[in-house]
Amino acid sequence: MYGRYTQDLGTFAKDEAARLRLQEGDTPRPRRPSELLEYTQGRCAPCRVCALQCQRFLISKVGEDWVFLILLGLVMALVSWAMDFAIATCLQAQKWMYGGLDTNVLLQYMAWVTYPTVLITFSAGFTQILAPQAVGSGIPEMKTILRGVVLKEYLTLKTFVAKVIGLTCALGSGMPLGKEGPFVHIASMCAALLSRFLSLFGGFYENEARNIEMLAAACAVGVGCCFAAPIGGVLFSIEVTSTFFAVRNYWRGFLAATFSAFIFRVLAVWNKDEETITALFKTRFRLDFPFDLQELPAFAVIGIASGFGGALFVYLNRKIVQFMRRQKTINRFLMKKRLLFPALVTLIISTLTFPPGFGQFMAGQLTQKDTLVTLFDNQTWAKQGLSDEFEYLGILEAWRHPRSNVFVTLVVFILMKFWMSALATTIPVPCGAFMPVFVIGAAFGRLVGESMAAWFPDGIHTESNTYRIVPGGYAVVGAAALSGAVTHTVSTAVIVFELTGQISHILPVMIAVILANAVAQSLQPSLYDSIIRIKKLPYLPELGWGHHEKYNVRVEDIMVRDIRYVTLNCRYRDLQQVLHSTKMKNLPLVESAESMILLGSIERAQVGALLSNQLSPQRRLLTLRQKVLSEDGHRLSDSSIRFQISTEASSGTPARPALRKPLKPALKRVPSSPADSPPAGATDHTGIALKSLFCANSAAEPTEAQGTAYHKAKRVRISIVEEMILGDKMTPAEILEWEEQQLDQLVDFSSAKIDPAPFQLVEHTSLHKTHTIFSLLGLDHAFVTSIGRLVGMVSLKELRKAIEGSVTAKGVKVRPPLASFRDSTASTSDADTTALRQLWDRHQHHPMPREASPGGDDDDDTPKGQ
Amino acid sequence: MYGRYTQDLGTFAKDEAARLRLQEGDTPRPRRPSELLEYTQGRCAPCRVCALQCQRFLISKVGEDWVFLILLGLVMALVSWAMDFAIATCLQAQKWMYGGLDTNVLLQYMAWVTYPTVLITFSAGFTQILAPQAVGSGIPEMKTILRGVVLKEYLTLKTFVAKVIGLTCALGSGMPLGKEGPFVHIASMCAALLSRFLSLFGGFYENEARNIEMLAAACAVGVGCCFAAPIGGVLFSIEVTSTFFAVRNYWRGFLAATFSAFIFRVLAVWNKDEETITALFKTRFRLDFPFDLQELPAFAVIGIASGFGGALFVYLNRKIVQFMRRQKTINRFLMKKRLLFPALVTLIISTLTFPPGFGQFMAGQLTQKDTLVTLFDNQTWAKQGLSDEFEYLGILEAWRHPRSNVFVTLVVFILMKFWMSALATTIPVPCGAFMPVFVIGAAFGRLVGESMAAWFPDGIHTESNTYRIVPGGYAVVGAAALSGAVTHTVSTAVIVFELTGQISHILPVMIAVILANAVAQSLQPSLYDSIIRIKKLPYLPELGWGHHEKYNVRVEDIMVRDIRYVTLNCRYRDLQQVLHSTKMKNLPLVESAESMILLGSIERAQVGALLSNQLSPQRRLLTLRQKVLSEDGHRLSDSSIRFQISTEASSGTPARPALRKPLKPALKRVPSSPADSPPAGATDHTGIALKSLFCANSAAEPTEAQGTAYHKAKRVRISIVEEMILGDKMTPAEILEWEEQQLDQLVDFSSAKIDPAPFQLVEHTSLHKTHTIFSLLGLDHAFVTSIGRLVGMVSLKELRKAIEGSVTAKGVKVRPPLASFRDSTASTSDADTTALRQLWDRHQHHPMPREASPGGDDDDDTPKGQ
Repeated sequence: MYGRYTQDLGTFAKDEAARLRLQEGDTPRPRRPSELLEYTQGRCAPCRVCALQCQRFLISKVGEDWVFLILLGLVMALVSWAMDFAIATCLQAQKWMYGGLDTNVLLQYMAWVTYPTVLITFSAGFTQILAPQAVGSGIPEMKTILRGVVLKEYLTLKTFVAKVIGLTCALGSGMPLGKEGPFVHIASMCAALLSRFLSLFGGFYENEARNIEMLAAACAVGVGCCFAAPIGGVLFSIEVTSTFFAVRNYWRGFLAATFSAFIFRVLAVWNKDEETITALFKTRFRLDFPFDLQELPAFAVIGIASGFGGALFVYLNRKIVQFMRRQKTINRFLMKKRLLFPALVTLIISTLTFPPGFGQFMAGQLTQKDTLVTLFDNQTWAKQGLSDEFEYLGILEAWRHPRSNVFVTLVVFILMKFWMSALATTIPVPCGAFMPVFVIGAAFGRLVGESMAAWFPDGIHTESNTYRIVPGGYAVVGAAALSGAVTHTVSTAVIVFELTGQISHILPVMIAVILANAVAQSLQPSLYDSIIRIKKLPYLPELGWGHHEKYNVRVEDIMVRDIRYVTLNCRYRDLQQVLHSTKMKNLPLVESAESMILLGSIERAQVGALLSNQLSPQRRLLTLRQKVLSEDGHRLSDSSIRFQISTEASSGTPARPALRKPLKPALKRVPSSPADSPPAGATDHTGIALKSLFCANSAAEPTEAQGTAYHKAKRVRISIVEEMILGDKMTPAEILEWEEQQLDQLVDFSSAKIDPAPFQLVEHTSLHKTHTIFSLLGLDHAFVTSIGRLVGMVSLKELRKAIEGSVTAKGVKVRPPLASFRDSTASTSDADTTALRQLWDRHQHHPMPREASPGGDDDDDTPKGQ
Repeated sequence: MYGRYTQDLGTFAKDEAARLRLQEGDTPRPRRPSELLEYTQGRCAPCRVCALQCQRFLISKVGEDWVFLILLGLVMALVSWAMDFAIATCLQAQKWMYGGLDTNVLLQYMAWVTYPTVLITFSAGFTQILAPQAVGSGIPEMKTILRGVVLKEYLTLKTFVAKVIGLTCALGSGMPLGKEGPFVHIASMCAALLSRFLSLFGGFYENEARNIEMLAAACAVGVGCCFAAPIGGVLFSIEVTSTFFAVRNYWRGFLAATFSAFIFRVLAVWNKDEETITALFKTRFRLDFPFDLQELPAFAVIGIASGFGGALFVYLNRKIVQFMRRQKTINRFLMKKRLLFPALVTLIISTLTFPPGFGQFMAGQLTQKDTLVTLFDNQTWAKQGLSDEFEYLGILEAWRHPRSNVFVTLVVFILMKFWMSALATTIPVPCGAFMPVFVIGAAFGRLVGESMAAWFPDGIHTESNTYRIVPGGYAVVGAAALSGAVTHTVSTAVIVFELTGQISHILPVMIAVILANAVAQSLQPSLYDSIIRIKKLPYLPELGWGHHEKYNVRVEDIMVRDIRYVTLNCRYRDLQQVLHSTKMKNLPLVESAESMILLGSIERAQVGALLSNQLSPQRRLLTLRQKVLSEDGHRLSDSSIRFQISTEASSGTPARPALRKPLKPALKRVPSSPADSPPAGATDHTGIALKSLFCANSAAEPTEAQGTAYHKAKRVRISIVEEMILGDKMTPAEILEWEEQQLDQLVDFSSAKIDPAPFQLVEHTSLHKTHTIFSLLGLDHAFVTSIGRLVGMVSLKELRKAIEGSVTAKGVKVRPPLASFRDSTASTSDADTTALRQLWDRHQHHPMPREASPGGDDDDDTPKGQ
């Protein structure tokens, strides 16, 4: 349906097969007696029957959603736990090494720096070799995949292995990297692999729609088992990956994420890490008076500052990537030595965090987890005047510096970590940015909290019982606000509650997160959208906060009016012209050039196939043979067989490299069989019409559809060779003449696959509605029709341009001059009526035969009084 | 677009107006200098300019979404707080009255019973008189409205007033009723009123799409300010009211709900009820060891039992309503005395809860709020063997009974409250069922918790430090599970955390809620869906949990093939026939009966208008006049004026009641101006063809579209009267002959409004996808086409039938016999190709003129080899 017919046709066969299988599976009881007759003849018949029943029962259960979701949750919990364990071991090892060498600072430094450098370099190299798709967060890619774009290599076993091992090493190095984003990707890959595995038991998992639903649930599982935050995980994954969310998929996410979080925490209990199931970063703030009403302005300040900070982070991250790309000398050097950049960045960052060096001013010896635990601590670090008496216990010690106070440490920490995180997340290893940002936010919150505590040492509330200010609460608020600002999500609030196990600060957190979002969204795209843009993934920008213009720009303002089309009664020559003149992947099929009634859409590849079929040497041979047959009788048929054998051997001749343009490997792999390579020199004087066509094509960007057509053309050329010797009698001039003849024939569409119901919009559909429909249905183009007549087309590109144009230039840019001619309802509906009347008139009187000129549909611009 | 063209056309004018206004508003700077020239001439010009600028600035700000949302949040918080205050006062008054009369039990009883009866009766009567739409929860109606159905009377000021006052009285009576559902409704009404009010300042609020978005946010505000639970509120409102949720609307809900919850709680602080902002039902469970891993099975049991309980509650509630409707004698009696039923129910319930009577066994003296506070209490009530020593403090006293133990009290409470709540929510007052169910769930959880505490008096954990079991935690779990089961939502978990201010029990709560949902969803629809079915609101059932058949049923299996259509070259007689033979609200417009190419859809009312226009006496008069004019010159024109004046006075003649069938008041009010009533006897011998048509219509169910056509017909009849005296010369036979002549003319569609792009599906779109598209786009019908040719139609009815059929009968019911003929991909695409070839052939050769027979498109059943 609607423009994705190929995909549908592809899955249709699968569906049909699954359906037949299901039909059998659905009605086993009435069939069984007759079916099992043969078994009952045997000796161990009851056993067999029982086994068969069990097997059937199991298989039917395997098809249930909940079995899949629970399996997914279980697997992901195990993966998450194992990875956490490995990461903790890695970090432990570094600490142990650093601690053991405390006699020599140089050795200590070497150990401190080498260890992460080796790990990161290994991670980068391993990922690069095994699956480059595993690099980065994965959330942008998941967002694109859930929008309906097929990025096949992103969900394979190879990528899974590369991502798991790469991420473990990257996090084990102690760099400021996160695991949330990669976990979303890992869970999605896990779901894809699991569904492929389970489809061995039945055809239930081969349904496209269902797999997308399962992927959405998998994203929730990813966040859920990463933070043991099922609710926050579901919400975060919805906010980050979806534009429209089907509420009926809600429970899937909750079931899988809850189960996953549960198993994840139970594993910790069984491993004696915890006494019972509790939050990951448990806080112990007082319950009866969590915060004072008068502290709210401070929380609001955290929110607004986090909004600016988040936008700055996204900007910085993007600028670093763009800078690295733009510097051609650096770039060329780094391209050659791919592992140098990660190693260099790691070296710089770990040098700066070296605890006896600069690290002492920024709690450099703490791991990310320890940092968070200390930041969420219950105590106030800087009591006015009492600073020295205060006992820094255990890991809290790291924040104290003998020659400076805690404020300096916090400020240095925030500033250094900020650019370090922005830089570290550009390293080509599997890594996320959520956790580093979360830590920075917590530190910022703590800073504000400590300042407040220093300002009001006895609390603000001056009545009977004084409650002190809890800086830990500020840290919680700051963490939620900054991570919310960077990712443009509100659900970080929920994640924070689930992470800390306390919800008492709900209002401050919500206020700060909303303010941070408001500021950040008005300044920068989210980090994930920013990466989508950098990676140039096919995306559709969101409509911003309350841009009224969106409601007032219409499809007719943004649509492409000058589109090429195929008419039902066209000739092959017209097809050729259309293919020459446009690069559209889907061509509209209209009834005739004068009626312009849209009948369907036909893929470019199909048109190419029609054309190459018409001009194929087989057909020429057939014509020739029929002619010859009437002259020479049966003599020729023998030689035909002989020559066909000889050409099969000659098809292994060297390929012409100029014609073999490789397709993007990430999109689809083209099997390179020797049959694909055309023999040199053979095409010089045949398939002339074809050649000009496909040369034009190969000059254009080789999209997937064109690629297929291109390969088909090659295959045609090979068969040309087969027949060349036979068709020797025909001179190039004759062939050209024959081809010209063929091109003048009417097109026979019966062998072409046509999408019978491409998506249609009306001229005055608003941009807002168009955006909704495009994102809802995952369209990439839609035809604009007016009472069945094709008047234009809108593709993702136009829509994107319109939205971005109107975002930046407040709706002025996208309004072409013609929009100002339209001023009232009457005229538009008049135009409709006029068009209808034209159609009607055409039926009344006999139609005037007009020249069918492909390209240019001027009908919609005709004056009304016609 | 897609089948809701009328609405679009209706709003189109508004949009256009708003757009023009915006155009002015958007570009104030470039225009100002020239525009304000006239002002600068005056003396106080600077002031005026400044005032104008301020005004413009304010107006442009008023248009911002966030201003609206904050205003909405503020208003709703005030409403919520004021209502809570009033309700608390009412309950206080009852307690005071009951307490003051403790000398005489009879007087006490009278006071205890009379007070709620009076309040409920007043509430029922007040609502009945002012706005019957205010009765009940309102969530089912909001779900329907957000699906795109217009239920106008549900969002008026009258309903708002009725709902607020009715709800206050109903809750003040102390009956087991809730305020959550009505609050969703109140917030939506508030949003609708606010947007109408703010649209005085600008046209921003007249956009349909935007208002729907705001309504969705308002639902979140409703829940949010009712429970001071912003996150839970947003999620609950999404789950309950939406099928597909636009993530870009997410922040709207959060912003409004957070602000509302904030103000709601700040009001409590300012009123000195609270010291600072905390949760509504704050709990103080220990943080370090909230529950033991081995307690999880008990939580799971609560979940499963709650699932069954929730389904039972929905079933019971529906059965009570159905029983009341079915008992005709009772029904007739109650219909006459509408206030008797509420009074009776209140009497029974308050009698049973009378504290000195049966109420002593079920903590009858506690209000709903007190009950919840006690149930969430930190202490264990029933310590094995220590029962007597335990000090029941304050309101906890109510749960103790000297001659029985706490288990008996809890069991009696649960059983009694269960049927009481199910019964009470059927009273025709504004009330919800969430809170009563929540309380019952909490009591059930407490019961399980107390049992566990009695079973393991020293806790399960047998290692070093023993932690006792906390029955209050069980109560929290039970409350979330039962309310989740009744409403089929997962977000009750979040609401519970926000209500109690503790999230430590997250995993037990999530597990119980998910299990409860799994059980309840497989047994019964949600309470709101149940009410939707009882009220017969237009709805689309959800696809159930993992029904595979949904992926395998196709549109061709469920579509209506035998549809009536209008052809472009049809005659008025055909229109008449079509209107006679079908009740469809939208008729497809095809090019011709043989091509069946779908051009658009035309509303039934439009067809009726076309027809009545063609047969209108004005046209007859015109024809007549032209004929006469050629005979008699200009003499007639004078008399025409005279008669028109006289008929305007005579149009106030009494109406014919048989023809005036009242429309459903909830759908749309028909203004009953005197012009609407046709004079008696006038239509007896005119408009014969019309009469038969509209009599047929009035026998059918008077839908909105028909109603309009009907009223148009009446207006036509009035004009018939105007001209009657003039057309006196024509005998009925002559008129009939003239009308027959007119009917044979070809239809001129130029004046009709045609939806140029009705929504189209392909034959092999799956049911799953169809359901998605219908719910996404809020369709109520879609045409099924095959390469532009109309082959069938699917409406909400067929879809509903198919889903419900397949839910109950596992997909067998909905597969018509023809589905079994289809067995592979090839055949379907063959059929497509065949159809295309037919179309193509038709173009090649000259079309054979076939008889255009409206109704019956047999083309798609033609054999393939044709």
